[in-house]
Amino acid sequence: MIYLDANATTPLLPEVLEAMLPWMREGYANPSGSYSAAKLARRAIDEARGQVAEWIGADAGEIVFTGGGTESVNAALVSLDRLGAPGAAVVSAIEHSAVLRCAESFSRELVRVPVTSGGRIEMDAFATALGGASFVSLMAANNETGVIQPLEEAAALAREHRVPIHTDAIQAAGKMDLNVKALGVDLLSLSAHKFHGPKGVGALYVREGLRFVPMQHGGGQESGRRCGTENTAGIVGMGAAAAWMSRAVEVSLAACRDAFETRLIQGISGVIVNGDVRNRLVNTSHLSFDGCDAAGLLILLDEAGIACAAGSACMTGKQRPSHVQLAMGIPEARAKSSLRISFSRLNTLEDALVAADAMVKAVEKLRRVQGAGVGPVVVYSR
Amino acid sequence: MIYLDANATTPLLPEVLEAMLPWMREGYANPSGSYSAAKLARRAIDEARGQVAEWIGADAGEIVFTGGGTESVNAALVSLDRLGAPGAAVVSAIEHSAVLRCAESFSRELVRVPVTSGGRIEMDAFATALGGASFVSLMAANNETGVIQPLEEAAALAREHRVPIHTDAIQAAGKMDLNVKALGVDLLSLSAHKFHGPKGVGALYVREGLRFVPMQHGGGQESGRRCGTENTAGIVGMGAAAAWMSRAVEVSLAACRDAFETRLIQGISGVIVNGDVRNRLVNTSHLSFDGCDAAGLLILLDEAGIACAAGSACMTGKQRPSHVQLAMGIPEARAKSSLRISFSRLNTLEDALVAADAMVKAVEKLRRVQGAGVGPVVVYSR
Repeated sequence: MIYLDANATTPLLPEVLEAMLPWMREGYANPSGSYSAAKLARRAIDEARGQVAEWIGADAGEIVFTGGGTESVNAALVSLDRLGAPGAAVVSAIEHSAVLRCAESFSRELVRVPVTSGGRIEMDAFATALGGASFVSLMAANNETGVIQPLEEAAALAREHRVPIHTDAIQAAGKMDLNVKALGVDLLSLSAHKFHGPKGVGALYVREGLRFVPMQHGGGQESGRRCGTENTAGIVGMGAAAAWMSRAVEVSLAACRDAFETRLIQGISGVIVNGDVRNRLVNTSHLSFDGCDAAGLLILLDEAGIACAAGSACMTGKQRPSHVQLAMGIPEARAKSSLRISFSRLNTLEDALVAADAMVKAVEKLRRVQGAGVGPVVVYSR
Repeated sequence: MIYLDANATTPLLPEVLEAMLPWMREGYANPSGSYSAAKLARRAIDEARGQVAEWIGADAGEIVFTGGGTESVNAALVSLDRLGAPGAAVVSAIEHSAVLRCAESFSRELVRVPVTSGGRIEMDAFATALGGASFVSLMAANNETGVIQPLEEAAALAREHRVPIHTDAIQAAGKMDLNVKALGVDLLSLSAHKFHGPKGVGALYVREGLRFVPMQHGGGQESGRRCGTENTAGIVGMGAAAAWMSRAVEVSLAACRDAFETRLIQGISGVIVNGDVRNRLVNTSHLSFDGCDAAGLLILLDEAGIACAAGSACMTGKQRPSHVQLAMGIPEARAKSSLRISFSRLNTLEDALVAADAMVKAVEKLRRVQGAGVGPVVVYSR
């Protein structure tokens, strides 16, 4: 399998697994215990906290480990909602469903700020919305299109209005520089499995001095900000992955993605690159294929050993354009013919070229079968 | 190290780790993907769901995987609170802090039903409280004392009053039979790492037909009841541990605990067994030692290679009697001289006897140093 769905999840790095294994074998003690073995686990968690903090330019005390990215996002928003001044929750229209569904669950007004056709938040509309805002959540980069948002500018505006801001940086992490101080955000969500760490563990940056109430109550772990026995192995894995990302270089990601797009666009006509190409993550390619149904393409690609996604992984199987594509004004036919190809640092240039060739073949085959129109030829269900 | 703190956490079984490893290596695909590798992960999660369901007599569709026991408890209570009729949240006074702190965060009244000196809920007071109850949370067995609660009786009473009931079965699981249908509960919380599964994963039983709203919103995973990318390896591990527990026999636990207590009580005077001994988990021994400070004992035991706890792990380091001991009316001096020794299925009879001998020596040494009175001789801080 050539795996090109890194925005859905990434392979666990072998060296990250190695770092985790001692904590799944002899290092099982509960870090809250008073005996020596427990103190070793506590120390390992502290070290991981330092690794994650250093990666994003935070202090260790500002990092709260969670059970994943979705929990981080929910915990951030729940705290903002409970402590926030009256006013609206302000988000971009293209946030991940973790942000949107959570914000919809609050009793306060929810303002979805529109985006440009390139998939970036409309800054004028955002500035207007800030007037009546209680808090803001704006993603660092979109999970479907990879389009990077003007977060630093938005955070500066929010600060001017004294409105706290959370950023869902789950998709951006490891694909662009993230420094919480430079970004100027109050809260930032991360998920380990999006950058070669384990599933089931995430982190939330909570700016020193920001008031915070926990979503999950219990035994007082994580300084009372996220209770529950610490997942030592998972946390150590997240720390090791963060440390690895701190050392990694980005050049291979862009090289893979660009080689893939060049080969593909030279191989077939009717390929559209969606999203603002000057502002997108180096690993993500969001493409529409004239005359092709995405569901059919995915089946042909799976048969050819290529793993990628239609829209976002969370929306797979739903026969409608994603809210992201709707917000960008992408016509329905083009939305339904779109794929997301996302590279990780473990991909090679050869992966990119082989995948491009396989995609050319799949598109040609599907176009022969489907003729000129776009429509489902395969009944696709889960 | 002889590890006798199984109520804090248990070692991951080697065969559970083996079951998890493929999902931390090649089986990394996001279970929501459309390609073959993703479908394999989906199937593994479904199998684990069946294993957990079978263990507790539930249907697979009634099991929701979470990020741990504390999350399970919080999710259960948050749903009950949001959907509940007017009235109080009714809990026992000895619930785990996950239940107590979560219930305290609601705007509704919280009724803490008292317990007997043996640590069991007062059924008359419970029946009275049901009159004004919106919902109930009653643990299956207490984490500190191991005392088993009259859950089946309480659930029957709650049903008569049409009051939904959640049980925190996190500490009971694997140490007594748990069958959701026989117990008659609506919601039941589990944590994998308490029965030789991995940390960072739990489950919530939600009775078919019970209305439920999620605490954590997002991409629709777990039928929308717990969103967030599934932790495939962790879930597979929880399933494997549940399957192992289904096959395991309980005799070794009771044998270890009883041999330990017999040896200890024959070796030194002034040992008090706390809690209702006719109704306690087979693995738990909660003891007070006349004239000994628990913190000092723990240090001596750690030096001797014995790992156990004072009160509950969550309260370790706090120089006050736990709320459980206070509710049982245990005098402060006796509370401060208490230890919790908890066995797992991986302990041997020899562990029990060696630990008893080490404890006799530690108690004798401490009594020589401290003299007759109980008081801290060691400044103990974290």
